[in-house]
Amino acid sequence: MIPRQYMFDTIRRIFERFGFLPLDTPGIEKEDILTGGDPAFSKSIFRTSATGSRYEGLAMRFDLTVPLARVVASYPNDISRPFKRYQVGKVWRGEKPQAGRFREFVQFDADIVGARTSMADAEIISLMYETMTALGFSEFVIRVNNRKILNGLPAYAGFPVDRNEAVLRAIDKMGKIDWKGVSEELGREPGDGDDSGVGLEGPAIEAIRRFIELQGGSSRETLAAVQKLMVDSPQAMEGITELLEIIEHVEALGVPEDRWAIDLSVARGLGYYTGPVFETILTNLPSIGSVFSGGRYDDLVARFSSGSLPATGASVGVDRLFAAMEMLEIIPSVTTISKVMVLNFDVDCQYLIQKIVSSLRSENIPAEVYLGGEATLKAQLSFAVKQGVPYILIIGGNERRSGRAQLKDTVQRTQVEVMFEELPFVLRSLLTGK
Amino acid sequence: MIPRQYMFDTIRRIFERFGFLPLDTPGIEKEDILTGGDPAFSKSIFRTSATGSRYEGLAMRFDLTVPLARVVASYPNDISRPFKRYQVGKVWRGEKPQAGRFREFVQFDADIVGARTSMADAEIISLMYETMTALGFSEFVIRVNNRKILNGLPAYAGFPVDRNEAVLRAIDKMGKIDWKGVSEELGREPGDGDDSGVGLEGPAIEAIRRFIELQGGSSRETLAAVQKLMVDSPQAMEGITELLEIIEHVEALGVPEDRWAIDLSVARGLGYYTGPVFETILTNLPSIGSVFSGGRYDDLVARFSSGSLPATGASVGVDRLFAAMEMLEIIPSVTTISKVMVLNFDVDCQYLIQKIVSSLRSENIPAEVYLGGEATLKAQLSFAVKQGVPYILIIGGNERRSGRAQLKDTVQRTQVEVMFEELPFVLRSLLTGK
Repeated sequence: MIPRQYMFDTIRRIFERFGFLPLDTPGIEKEDILTGGDPAFSKSIFRTSATGSRYEGLAMRFDLTVPLARVVASYPNDISRPFKRYQVGKVWRGEKPQAGRFREFVQFDADIVGARTSMADAEIISLMYETMTALGFSEFVIRVNNRKILNGLPAYAGFPVDRNEAVLRAIDKMGKIDWKGVSEELGREPGDGDDSGVGLEGPAIEAIRRFIELQGGSSRETLAAVQKLMVDSPQAMEGITELLEIIEHVEALGVPEDRWAIDLSVARGLGYYTGPVFETILTNLPSIGSVFSGGRYDDLVARFSSGSLPATGASVGVDRLFAAMEMLEIIPSVTTISKVMVLNFDVDCQYLIQKIVSSLRSENIPAEVYLGGEATLKAQLSFAVKQGVPYILIIGGNERRSGRAQLKDTVQRTQVEVMFEELPFVLRSLLTGK
Repeated sequence: MIPRQYMFDTIRRIFERFGFLPLDTPGIEKEDILTGGDPAFSKSIFRTSATGSRYEGLAMRFDLTVPLARVVASYPNDISRPFKRYQVGKVWRGEKPQAGRFREFVQFDADIVGARTSMADAEIISLMYETMTALGFSEFVIRVNNRKILNGLPAYAGFPVDRNEAVLRAIDKMGKIDWKGVSEELGREPGDGDDSGVGLEGPAIEAIRRFIELQGGSSRETLAAVQKLMVDSPQAMEGITELLEIIEHVEALGVPEDRWAIDLSVARGLGYYTGPVFETILTNLPSIGSVFSGGRYDDLVARFSSGSLPATGASVGVDRLFAAMEMLEIIPSVTTISKVMVLNFDVDCQYLIQKIVSSLRSENIPAEVYLGGEATLKAQLSFAVKQGVPYILIIGGNERRSGRAQLKDTVQRTQVEVMFEELPFVLRSLLTGK
């Protein structure tokens, strides 16, 4: 948990640097509010009820975005907008547990509610870039697309609008499987317990291929090519305009060109996105999938109130991100919070070592007295070394008489004598390197 | 949430200074593990199951101590002991919602597992003292007692052992109601929908009164008096010896005499305490009850494994504590994370202000661009002031041409001109006061 905490702290530091405010919402909410009656959501939700009570319509949140939208809609006058908030918390999905699919996991979200401008979307992309960089990632790409372009596909490629959701689901797999797999899925008839088939004709599939293959050049070149290809779809044109604006803003915010790209295959699964969508792929660990994703969802707040409210944001996939940091060894493998352990092997020195540990804590040095059942210096020393504590203090009868502790550096494997009253200052300088 | 976050950060800082490690455990666990078959627990638990699934025996945690005991028992070889951990998280109780009783609340715990010594209990008391002080409380008392003394009451006062739980429940109310109320409850026959009556005879009640009235002197005087009174109970004598040890250790750890006291009326509700118990009362807000409580629970881990493991710890009542901090006005009423807001009223300056906000963030200054729908300088200015941002930057056509921003200090109500490239350094020194 120590490296995990380090990851949380880093994310929070960057989110706060962007001016996002912390928010907390309940873990349990009304089920109909969480799902909004959408069967895609209600099929994977945990219902809950107090023992001995009937089901009162309560369920556990499956993400942090829906509860945010509910809060914003409930307090239209108390929350001034734009409202920038971050939230970290557990979410639950009632899915069959399997490898990489947990029923309980942690999300870390940042959202801007009440901002229609493309500058807000660019802020999210900049936030994603700065967070990834602060966490120590150097090989990643933030892929950006716009749902409005994807919504123009049926008109452009010539297939029924009601198949577009299945088409997008197939396209979304371009990161995991290649075009061969995707085109096979697009052509296969849906049926018999397999709902991944879309059932498109050859020409439609061919048009989709031309669309996906547009990329490869710079972001502006890609957009120019889409503009030409989909000129008959006003919705796609609107999406392109937004992305061109975002490009300018992202550049002004100083996000390097090689850390983000327009990628026409990005759809993102959740039903509530309405405009730009973002995802973050580790180029040295592509198989792990997106570790930080989001997009614009201008209609979600309207689900809970009469007025609509534009919103954009992104969510860190905490467990995936942490797994990646461990694999790439970019997270410090610290095993202890204490910087100093004071051994406790001489009953006559107990009060003395408690006074000393207090004096260290007063100087804000994380320190502890050995509290276990081992009585000998040797066994306690081996425990402290195994714990990974950087400094060990040895204080027995001799040290008490001389007024000097033995200070062991477990990393340098050195040992010096330090006067009791000088310990806080000596350790403080050792720890801060001054 | 900003002041709440400040409270969490302060608690965590002190807990880490004592060498406690962070731990996280699932929100959902097996119900029989959480309750251990104890009806007192199972009657107020939230059961949960995935939509469309049968009840699979899952429920939501009602505290953080039981899950800790389960984790420690499950990984006997991976977790070296003593194991000092802290944990912050939501817990749920399936009670009827009413004033001051929430169904979902946050706990912040610190525990030491695998330490039998009284030094560990003293560590917890010292931790409670340092945390309360760091949070800004100056008028509080940590009350300390020992369950073993209370368990000696039936033999001493002459009443059946099976009534002791009800007696302790009554004594525990001494903080809320006075002796008159408690003695009335001790004498009343239990029955008819009111289970608070204990049904003791007059002499037993009188003996309990003598016991409770022992206090008033110093902690050592109180214990000497109990020692005399309960000399025939070996268990009470053991409890007194432990408390005398704790007194010495607490003094060595530098906890001031007026911040803690032996208090024979402290029982603490939860069934799993076996030795010393602690609670923290605000002397200027006694009605709020204990804000930080705990005790030793040597038998809880044995519920999950063949071996028993001694443990001691304490839990912050986060919601109560926060309410108290607000009432006492000892928590900063900050309303914004951003230190700087850059107004955004001139479309020709958009990229310029994005470059400037980036340069501030690079210097770790929390800063944001105005992203709302108001177009005029005046309306944006009034939004920024209402948000409570300490510094506002105004950059329009004139400023762009001169290369100097207008920097407004909303607290001092002053305004100066600063060259764009000097903004990060100027603001950094204003914010750090250097």
